[in-house]
Amino acid sequence: MVIVMATDATAEDVDAIVERVAAAGGEAFVSRGVSRVVIGLVGDVDRFETLNLGSLPAVQSVTRISAKYKLVSREHHPERSTVYVGGVPVGPDTVTLIAGPCAVETPEQTLEAARMAQSAGAVLLRGGAYKPRTSPYAFQGLGEEGLRILADVRAETGLPIVTEVVAADDVETVARYADMLQIGTRNMSNFGLLQAVGAAGKPVLLKRGMSATIEEWLMAAEYIAQRGNLDIVLCERGIRTFETATRNTLDISAVPVVQRLSHLPVMIDPSHSGGRRDLVLPLSRAAVAVGADGVLVDVHPHPEQALCDGPQALVAEDLQRLAAELDALSGVVGRGLSTWWNRRLLAG
Amino acid sequence: MVIVMATDATAEDVDAIVERVAAAGGEAFVSRGVSRVVIGLVGDVDRFETLNLGSLPAVQSVTRISAKYKLVSREHHPERSTVYVGGVPVGPDTVTLIAGPCAVETPEQTLEAARMAQSAGAVLLRGGAYKPRTSPYAFQGLGEEGLRILADVRAETGLPIVTEVVAADDVETVARYADMLQIGTRNMSNFGLLQAVGAAGKPVLLKRGMSATIEEWLMAAEYIAQRGNLDIVLCERGIRTFETATRNTLDISAVPVVQRLSHLPVMIDPSHSGGRRDLVLPLSRAAVAVGADGVLVDVHPHPEQALCDGPQALVAEDLQRLAAELDALSGVVGRGLSTWWNRRLLAG
Amino acid sequence: MVIVMATDATAEDVDAIVERVAAAGGEAFVSRGVSRVVIGLVGDVDRFETLNLGSLPAVQSVTRISAKYKLVSREHHPERSTVYVGGVPVGPDTVTLIAGPCAVETPEQTLEAARMAQSAGAVLLRGGAYKPRTSPYAFQGLGEEGLRILADVRAETGLPIVTEVVAADDVETVARYADMLQIGTRNMSNFGLLQAVGAAGKPVLLKRGMSATIEEWLMAAEYIAQRGNLDIVLCERGIRTFETATRNTLDISAVPVVQRLSHLPVMIDPSHSGGRRDLVLPLSRAAVAVGADGVLVDVHPHPEQALCDGPQALVAEDLQRLAAELDALSGVVGRGLSTWWNRRLLAG
Amino acid sequence: MVIVMATDATAEDVDAIVERVAAAGGEAFVSRGVSRVVIGLVGDVDRFETLNLGSLPAVQSVTRISAKYKLVSREHHPERSTVYVGGVPVGPDTVTLIAGPCAVETPEQTLEAARMAQSAGAVLLRGGAYKPRTSPYAFQGLGEEGLRILADVRAETGLPIVTEVVAADDVETVARYADMLQIGTRNMSNFGLLQAVGAAGKPVLLKRGMSATIEEWLMAAEYIAQRGNLDIVLCERGIRTFETATRNTLDISAVPVVQRLSHLPVMIDPSHSGGRRDLVLPLSRAAVAVGADGVLVDVHPHPEQALCDGPQALVAEDLQRLAAELDALSGVVGRGLSTWWNRRLLAG
Repeated sequence: MVIVMATDATAEDVDAIVERVAAAGGEAFVSRGVSRVVIGLVGDVDRFETLNLGSLPAVQSVTRISAKYKLVSREHHPERSTVYVGGVPVGPDTVTLIAGPCAVETPEQTLEAARMAQSAGAVLLRGGAYKPRTSPYAFQGLGEEGLRILADVRAETGLPIVTEVVAADDVETVARYADMLQIGTRNMSNFGLLQAVGAAGKPVLLKRGMSATIEEWLMAAEYIAQRGNLDIVLCERGIRTFETATRNTLDISAVPVVQRLSHLPVMIDPSHSGGRRDLVLPLSRAAVAVGADGVLVDVHPHPEQALCDGPQALVAEDLQRLAAELDALSGVVGRGLSTWWNRRLLAG
Repeated sequence: MVIVMATDATAEDVDAIVERVAAAGGEAFVSRGVSRVVIGLVGDVDRFETLNLGSLPAVQSVTRISAKYKLVSREHHPERSTVYVGGVPVGPDTVTLIAGPCAVETPEQTLEAARMAQSAGAVLLRGGAYKPRTSPYAFQGLGEEGLRILADVRAETGLPIVTEVVAADDVETVARYADMLQIGTRNMSNFGLLQAVGAAGKPVLLKRGMSATIEEWLMAAEYIAQRGNLDIVLCERGIRTFETATRNTLDISAVPVVQRLSHLPVMIDPSHSGGRRDLVLPLSRAAVAVGADGVLVDVHPHPEQALCDGPQALVAEDLQRLAAELDALSGVVGRGLSTWWNRRLLAG
Repeated sequence: MVIVMATDATAEDVDAIVERVAAAGGEAFVSRGVSRVVIGLVGDVDRFETLNLGSLPAVQSVTRISAKYKLVSREHHPERSTVYVGGVPVGPDTVTLIAGPCAVETPEQTLEAARMAQSAGAVLLRGGAYKPRTSPYAFQGLGEEGLRILADVRAETGLPIVTEVVAADDVETVARYADMLQIGTRNMSNFGLLQAVGAAGKPVLLKRGMSATIEEWLMAAEYIAQRGNLDIVLCERGIRTFETATRNTLDISAVPVVQRLSHLPVMIDPSHSGGRRDLVLPLSRAAVAVGADGVLVDVHPHPEQALCDGPQALVAEDLQRLAAELDALSGVVGRGLSTWWNRRLLAG
Repeated sequence: MVIVMATDATAEDVDAIVERVAAAGGEAFVSRGVSRVVIGLVGDVDRFETLNLGSLPAVQSVTRISAKYKLVSREHHPERSTVYVGGVPVGPDTVTLIAGPCAVETPEQTLEAARMAQSAGAVLLRGGAYKPRTSPYAFQGLGEEGLRILADVRAETGLPIVTEVVAADDVETVARYADMLQIGTRNMSNFGLLQAVGAAGKPVLLKRGMSATIEEWLMAAEYIAQRGNLDIVLCERGIRTFETATRNTLDISAVPVVQRLSHLPVMIDPSHSGGRRDLVLPLSRAAVAVGADGVLVDVHPHPEQALCDGPQALVAEDLQRLAAELDALSGVVGRGLSTWWNRRLLAG
């Protein structure tokens, strides 16, 4: 059961509901968004009905939800949501292009990649300072030094930053620099980390676990939402199958499936799903055509020197072409406002 | 090694090459197409080089091919091919819409479905007379009676017919009625059947096995090609993964991957991959955007009464909308001629 | 619904039931075994109940069956079955060792492999004359010549023969030579072939499709049973997963799962599942320990010269050791009679 | 390259090597075990050879290792290792039975389960105080209160404790109570957690990620080893596949595959792989037969009341039977000493 509070509800109104639910043997999870508070109730729903909470003036609505996930479901929130990242919208009206290097290596490489991204029309900069690597002997990222580089590049370019956090202990540090916290595929079921980013007050980009079902992915989002953060963007990045021609198999059907079940925006990462530069363009077109709310791509000024995932990184001309094609497609799929195109015009 | 004969090469020229290859300890597989003969050589390639076959006047070209598949590879044939089915092109310049009922049930249902397909702009009619079913107690199709119904509907509407063949013994019968022979996912590795359709003189629609790698799929095509038939259209229809929200997982990346490896056209079947009506439209858009040469969809005048796969069949309005959206997209992806749209205008 | 006829039931008794079922709008599938006839009914089961068929003297029992597969289910036949192959039992009391070369190559190689198999204690000889190969350019087997070699080796050694059939047209020929017909993994869903072997009057070894669910596998067995042949032995041979360290992933849990659902014997093929010689011994031990009714292994006198799957073939000492270990294990798992050990003693 | 130091090597000897490697442009990872120090070198191996480190008196051996994982590989340590947990050996000479409840719920339930485990012959007690759950609304474990219960039960029964840790921040707390730290399947790629347990000074039970390849699993073990802890036991617990008859597919082949690649002990968890009580016994038998060093099973005094995974928990008689069967099998597979049987005899 989910309770949406009226916009003028006070903290006391919320506390009163939490107490009544507890007295009825249930638990209330309070989620404070920018404009309103929602409360998820867990326990004996029939008993909650007898509390007649919907009649309280501070309550806007009360909904019974059958899905296992509550706050992220469309039963709770029928309209598709828009999440704002440093002022940039990600949602049903736009096609958002996020680009940047897989890993932050040097100030120069990061700035150069950001300029490439921006000139093509990307509106958010991605880049990893903390890298989860399969091998302990592989490059693990620059850590906080990488975050400082990203912050400098943001100051230079104006692009808000999306960057990964891999440990609960780092969340506070990363949140101090980043505009959006990314949870990578290997951490989708790291529930302590999900709860930590849920409490960090920054939008979250939640990648799908490479072997997670769609239901498990939405449950992971619910972990974040339950801590009071509904500013979540989902990102499909390929699942693990028997096929070896691609690094993973992009599950493009996941986009419309998720959009029926959840109000959260959904993006696609064509770089990590295919693992091949030549697939990024066609998969990005497919992403927009299927209805994704944006794409997230790797770029690198010198892919052959990249410390991480060079074979899939786009160079400048690739990204220009990708942006132009996505722009043409976004009109066809009825997305009136193509974020990056507008930005480009404004940047004139 | 693949030898392409000159257009005026005679049967004697071909025999002479076969004998020289045999004398050198190799095997020659002769493939007779409409306009030319190609010969695939298997054995010690370095020894074949010493035969200097390229210098024979009847030989147009000799190519060494490193892929396991020879005739269907782009090494052998760098240009992407167009396959003609009853005069309808399937290839790089068009987006071909094939529609029809999963199973032929009655003359009325089949004609009604064909009219739906045609009025939306479909240019080929699909429909199953022989149905491979998991259960021996399920409806197995009408057999030759179904083929007669399809032929009658073709006479009525002018739409060429695509229909499945499930046993080598039926190939001759099916080929007498059909314009294109379909090999279903469960028979992709039924090598005797592949060889039989390879010799039947009709274009083939080869669906990917639900657990076949892309390489295995191209090897299956090679079985057909090796019997002299290069009029093959590949069709991705979803692979088997751990995800249960969809019937199968559409491997959309397979389209660009295959197009780099093979010259054969590639279509997508969004109906069988998702198994859900609501996914057909977005997946069809993704198919065109990623570069597929067409889509193959299930339609049924009364899906709730369908003997087979009703939950995924489109009704008339769905198909109209799908055709209109694909038409808009095909311009964006640089396919100047949208087959069905032109047909519709001509039918005007 | 399944009807088991009394042992003295006549053909007229059977016909009478078929007619009554047809009159009630249903279909009756008659399955004639060695000692009795069973009839599977498909249609409105509640209506069949009103026919009161159980009261007929020629009827021994009538059972409603909820599983999708009827004749192969334990609901129909609660006791686990024993299948006899040329007089050799495969079932709950024995651990049957089947060994032989992947492919029949020459009379010498086949006889040598058979001697190896026999001296270790194998009681059935496997060997392929018709090979389904992924590549049309790979060795496809010797065909009928291979069958003749197998028959000669049987005459020489006394070992009954298990050999694969890959096309419905070949069933009659293969059945003339073989004691047991094998359906390979690629043909598990080749329903026409299943029906043909169902009618051939020889026991069948049905390998699991490499991406078939257990339910689909039992449905494939039902196709055979429905044509009157319940002498079916199932064989798990690995499924396709993301793991690449082994050729396939042996689904050892399938053995106890199948044994709860079906009365048919279940064997394991450790050679094809792992694809590595060093795994054959431990996987064979696991097979017996989990409760499998036998194992099926590749042997070759000279694996380095094998035309097919050399890397997984055992040599003589390997097989001796394997047989000795399985013999020790079969006592522990309560299989009083170890077939091959007894044979060896007898042959003493 | 891995350097094993002599047992009398000093901290200065180690530092000297680290410096020489750094001067040669490489990195040295020092791993301090109970009886010796090993140093893993990453960088230009040919350059390291020129340093001639093997000639230093403090160095016992220098080995070039081609696998991506170094310290856990058999190249580094050819003999299979035995790990001691509170004095109990897990390794090549024994079959170790670990049993206990999935989750610690109450002192009574935990003690009752421990008594069941012990009387059957289990030598280590498992039980979860911190539970990683797919849903934020599911029971998450008792936390430190659960650890205290486990410690009390250990005091009562003498059974050392194996318990899961799910967050790096909890490692210190859990290590204070536990004899062995378990890393669950969802955290196998939580590299920060792996490093934290690597530094905690307690043996580690590392479950395989449900979609991890064997190589990725060994790389995860390397993360732990690299922090100086080689007391690692691997545990196969089923991988994710298309089959739905079992919760996961037990990859039994992983045991011999891993044993060829790594010196670490490998156990099997038949409870979580199958997710069904009726599969625990046959899969445990298969585990011992394939060569696993032990099994880890769920038991519960009242499975129908369990807060977690009741359907797979064994009751007392099941466990007695399982222990007796494993005991019989361990003789057959040449494990002279069956830990639990001896314990039982000693306990008289």
